[in-house]
Amino acid sequence: MSQEKYTIGVDYGTESGRAVLVNVKTGEELATAVHPYGDGVIDAHLPGSDKPLPPDFALQNPQDYLAVLQETIPAVLHASGVAAEDVIGVGTDFTACTMLPVTADGAPLCTQPEWRDNPYAWVKIWKHHAAQPEATQLNKTAHQRGETWLDLYGGKISSEWLIPKIWETLNKAPEVYAAAERYVEAADWIVWQLTGAEKRNACTAGYKAIWHKRSGYPSDDFFGSLDPRLRNVVDDKLSRDIYPLGARAGGLTPTMAALTGLRPGIAVPVGNVDAHVAVPASTVVEPGRLVAIMGTSTCIMVLGKEERIVEGMCGVVEDGIIPGLFGFEAGQSCVGDHFAWFVDNGVPPAYQAEAAQRGLNTHQLLEEKASRQKPGEHGLLALDWWNGNRSILVDVDLTGMLLGATLATKPEDIYRALIEATAYGARTIIEAFTGSGVPVNEIVACGGLPGRNRLLMQIYADVTGREIKVAGTDQAGALGSAMFAAVAAGKAAGGHDTIFEAAQAMAHLQEVVYKPIPAHKAVYDQLYAEYVKLHDYFGRGANDVMKRLKSLRQQVLAKS
Amino acid sequence: MSQEKYTIGVDYGTESGRAVLVNVKTGEELATAVHPYGDGVIDAHLPGSDKPLPPDFALQNPQDYLAVLQETIPAVLHASGVAAEDVIGVGTDFTACTMLPVTADGAPLCTQPEWRDNPYAWVKIWKHHAAQPEATQLNKTAHQRGETWLDLYGGKISSEWLIPKIWETLNKAPEVYAAAERYVEAADWIVWQLTGAEKRNACTAGYKAIWHKRSGYPSDDFFGSLDPRLRNVVDDKLSRDIYPLGARAGGLTPTMAALTGLRPGIAVPVGNVDAHVAVPASTVVEPGRLVAIMGTSTCIMVLGKEERIVEGMCGVVEDGIIPGLFGFEAGQSCVGDHFAWFVDNGVPPAYQAEAAQRGLNTHQLLEEKASRQKPGEHGLLALDWWNGNRSILVDVDLTGMLLGATLATKPEDIYRALIEATAYGARTIIEAFTGSGVPVNEIVACGGLPGRNRLLMQIYADVTGREIKVAGTDQAGALGSAMFAAVAAGKAAGGHDTIFEAAQAMAHLQEVVYKPIPAHKAVYDQLYAEYVKLHDYFGRGANDVMKRLKSLRQQVLAKS
Repeated sequence: MSQEKYTIGVDYGTESGRAVLVNVKTGEELATAVHPYGDGVIDAHLPGSDKPLPPDFALQNPQDYLAVLQETIPAVLHASGVAAEDVIGVGTDFTACTMLPVTADGAPLCTQPEWRDNPYAWVKIWKHHAAQPEATQLNKTAHQRGETWLDLYGGKISSEWLIPKIWETLNKAPEVYAAAERYVEAADWIVWQLTGAEKRNACTAGYKAIWHKRSGYPSDDFFGSLDPRLRNVVDDKLSRDIYPLGARAGGLTPTMAALTGLRPGIAVPVGNVDAHVAVPASTVVEPGRLVAIMGTSTCIMVLGKEERIVEGMCGVVEDGIIPGLFGFEAGQSCVGDHFAWFVDNGVPPAYQAEAAQRGLNTHQLLEEKASRQKPGEHGLLALDWWNGNRSILVDVDLTGMLLGATLATKPEDIYRALIEATAYGARTIIEAFTGSGVPVNEIVACGGLPGRNRLLMQIYADVTGREIKVAGTDQAGALGSAMFAAVAAGKAAGGHDTIFEAAQAMAHLQEVVYKPIPAHKAVYDQLYAEYVKLHDYFGRGANDVMKRLKSLRQQVLAKS
Repeated sequence: MSQEKYTIGVDYGTESGRAVLVNVKTGEELATAVHPYGDGVIDAHLPGSDKPLPPDFALQNPQDYLAVLQETIPAVLHASGVAAEDVIGVGTDFTACTMLPVTADGAPLCTQPEWRDNPYAWVKIWKHHAAQPEATQLNKTAHQRGETWLDLYGGKISSEWLIPKIWETLNKAPEVYAAAERYVEAADWIVWQLTGAEKRNACTAGYKAIWHKRSGYPSDDFFGSLDPRLRNVVDDKLSRDIYPLGARAGGLTPTMAALTGLRPGIAVPVGNVDAHVAVPASTVVEPGRLVAIMGTSTCIMVLGKEERIVEGMCGVVEDGIIPGLFGFEAGQSCVGDHFAWFVDNGVPPAYQAEAAQRGLNTHQLLEEKASRQKPGEHGLLALDWWNGNRSILVDVDLTGMLLGATLATKPEDIYRALIEATAYGARTIIEAFTGSGVPVNEIVACGGLPGRNRLLMQIYADVTGREIKVAGTDQAGALGSAMFAAVAAGKAAGGHDTIFEAAQAMAHLQEVVYKPIPAHKAVYDQLYAEYVKLHDYFGRGANDVMKRLKSLRQQVLAKS
């Protein structure tokens, strides 16, 4: 047995699962393995069936989650050469809300022959959007009743979250609802499989199931006012026992030890969510330092000492990110997707040819050309709403706008304007936090974008007026899960007693720091004021043209 | 000598001159010849010189205009097989304001050795933009003095027009101003060359030189208030003798007859402007039928029985298009240029590849894809201000806007939205006319665009709610000049006595008629209301963000 101890973090994404084996003392990532889900995202028809699924469905097969464990854990053990006896814990994080109906002992309904042909028996993943009618009704009722918890979620419960998804099943497939002895987040289900214990985590309960550490779930009266059959949904289908992050859910079962090659009994922490677990993996375990997980969209996380109502946030949950602190989550619906849309749809052949000739991709070429400009030089301003606005307006019906175009406008001008627009969007969120008493002094970026686009990082620093640092890992989810596994194992077993200690030891920053350039910031302050004016004009009701255009579009398409 | 009689129209464009030989009885165009100007547009340095010209200069060599006559007229005679004795007149039209300083006998200063090295001695063509400071000061002074003629020009005299260009020379090269015995429009200069007579036409005098049939030029006091040296500019450098369109300026001189192969003494009408002469060539000689000359930009012409103040028009001139009627001119700065910008800058390689494979150009492919959509389907709305707004806002500092974009937005969606935006822009002009008591019942389109894009024509019909017909000729300028030549010749010589008779005989429409589709019009009425709301918000001072962005851009570039 070596002196060095290790944990494994398993990060369940939308298309695949990823395991990373990490040194508990240093945070060194010794090996990574990725396993794509065999059935992927199920949105056309169930496996083995030709019957089309209803619109807006996005399902998964829970067996694929087990296959990830079976494939990736032996692979990282093998690749790292680390002995199983030196692995002291395995932690997991998941997309959320990704949920499924199970029996009392945790068996997914969809694995049972009598239910396998029913789509409502399968895992509904986060981007399953068929529960919009239920979410709309839930929000209306909550608003009418003056439910105070609504403000903790920016005034809206998303159709992606747990209660609308359960209610959708009750409405569309009451027989599945009746047969489901429990509804559980996949984040908690995988822990149940690993440990044999149903222990629900505070993160998904708080952010996705309207649970509050002090006041619990919404009242039975509220659920009954939605639908009398939902009155006892919490006691019938969920659980009021919620565990803080980093808590040890249990030890690895012998079955799972056999499946993975790990030792039985090693520590398994309660489940967690990919974006949230990325916060300590980015070194952030204290208030004042904002984490931006930047990819196709951006998740923004801040810790605070007190509960505050912040306009347009996705949620605030006590212990929801780091035990003992309030975790605030906000989001931008369209960041990398924005630039990808432009590269796919708006860049002419001459650019692609120049990029190919110089061995660059189109993003790199556009970044290079746009980097030669000074702030304000292109004369453009965009609203970053190609995919609606998550925070701070919480409005999916807003759309993108570009203004200032002339016959001299070039693709790199638009590319830069789109980057700037997302930076202005990030600044509205930061100002919503600081204006509500949640300080933001520094930004730590992680995710796919920061390493790929230096111009973008500098623009964010210039626009927000804050230093931006970059997480040392490019798999913050898996590293964060490995850190929580080390906490669940505890110092006595060679791990850490708290996530603060784990972050100190295992999480790192890159050396690069993006500092605001005062002359740029001065110009961006002017441009941001213009952005805010248009943001409010189009986003706060002065001119709802975007919604009317969307509605007209739907009418026209419905007639076709 | 044949029974058939012919005239020749010569259309002087920006890059070349074009002659068309036309049957006076039928309007049949028997032959066409084009001659590019040897020195082209002179914007870098004078011919034979390396010395850079000042910014915004656009000059021409008047010798190139004579070369057009020498080359193209013999060419059309030869190609048509028509005998010179059957040609009864030759008419001309020009871009305007295209002006030059000459001696008392019409010799261009730039052809004289002592002046040929001075750029101010050359022809300044319409797109010479160096007189903006003078135009700005002129407008300010006219506004302060309450000059009533300002409203006849939409409240602004353009830097492209005659007085600012003369004043620019006075400021920058007073020695050229002093040596210039006359300033003359190229439209009048070429007639002077053909006939030996300085006879100035009502069209350029009215639209470009602030001349009014009843009240003449602005007062000497006004000119003196601009600059004491300008006080007598009209009497010193111009002429108060202005001739109506279709008037016979004189007979072809023997010298010009020898140069062209035509008979001496045949009729030459007074000069005219390309866009204005296109009106009768499009069959329009009466109120109520609007002519849209659609190319890179669009000129819009309407005839009326009374002088009216119409918001943002370029000018209203009695006899300015058709004798006896008021000619109203308005314009859109960016139409074909809009679509060309998009095709050059915003269409990805897959589209170009598909177009190439199918033997289409990119415009055709986009038109085909966009044609499959219903109005309102793409969910977009644009403001057609990529090159500012000529009518009805008269503001070069406005810029383009696109709104409604989502991650599903495709290039054909944007292409269609840009076409629609120009149609909405045309409708604002039509509504300005009709709202001011100038009726518009039907539209006749000519120029390069109508024949190339059926979708565009249908959208214009649907958006404006008016039938659109298309001129039979695709060289309306030259045909119109040939028609005026027939009028100058008169019926006794085998021509026509009036432009009305000439139009009846010589101008034709194509069979195609674009009729508004009621269901489309209903949707476009909704979209037009949205356009107007944004047009007014961004264009009438509620939010001057476009101007602030342009100004910021200029500041940033000035610091570089």
